[in-house]
Amino acid sequence: MNRYTFAALALAGAVTALPAAAQFQKPEDAIKYRQSAMALQGATLGRVFSMANGRVPFDAKIATENIEIVAMLNRLQFSAFVEGSDLSNTKAKPTVWTQKDKFAASVAKSQEDVAKLAVAGRSGNQDQIKAAVGAVGQSCKACHDDFRKE
Amino acid sequence: MNRYTFAALALAGAVTALPAAAQFQKPEDAIKYRQSAMALQGATLGRVFSMANGRVPFDAKIATENIEIVAMLNRLQFSAFVEGSDLSNTKAKPTVWTQKDKFAASVAKSQEDVAKLAVAGRSGNQDQIKAAVGAVGQSCKACHDDFRKE
Repeated sequence: MNRYTFAALALAGAVTALPAAAQFQKPEDAIKYRQSAMALQGATLGRVFSMANGRVPFDAKIATENIEIVAMLNRLQFSAFVEGSDLSNTKAKPTVWTQKDKFAASVAKSQEDVAKLAVAGRSGNQDQIKAAVGAVGQSCKACHDDFRKE
Repeated sequence: MNRYTFAALALAGAVTALPAAAQFQKPEDAIKYRQSAMALQGATLGRVFSMANGRVPFDAKIATENIEIVAMLNRLQFSAFVEGSDLSNTKAKPTVWTQKDKFAASVAKSQEDVAKLAVAGRSGNQDQIKAAVGAVGQSCKACHDDFRKE
């Protein structure tokens, strides 16, 4: 795509695959997208936690499936913290955009821990999954403490 | 992860893997879950539509990736139409629960069409993807007409 076409599409509000910001027609779309991904990820991760900590019987197949879903959702959501999407209905703190390097590092840590969880998930080993999901929980909390409003 | 954090996360996601209804602590959780999955699916499918119809340049890799995401989300959302989740804040019509066989057939059609889209996605062929995503769009519309409020 040449520069002119790209600019024209952006002006027209058309969606495009790259860059991330251009995937959303409006900032509200990006907010809804990341909130949806977070909500689904939280629910799915909760199922893994429940099995990891023995609240519900451990089932390796179900754990693995849910971990694969978490891994996919985790990749999706961070594409949606686009410029201009710091609106009144977001829970994201302004620090997402004012401390970009710190946010990027926090996201990278989360993704690294989720990647390790995915490896543990494929092992089907409850102890490995428990340890790995614990680390993911800490990553989630650390990022939320710094970048999510109460 | 310390005990407090782990407990808090476990409480936040104290869900079980089986049966479907037991995956959600409250009907509201099921509603939020399926709405999140639908929103993400709609956004993701929109990207495929945009490429299939030429609104944005076709990129086989991106199309395939997005189709895989759609296929996964499509599997998730229908687990969340649990008994008792016909509340005021859902857009689901009562027919979801009063015409269960018809709803199940509509869901099955959607899943069948998404499975075909996944096959087309893996081919990377624009014409195949265009045809398959068109069929998915029709499935979506048919189900929404019958089972989703305006």
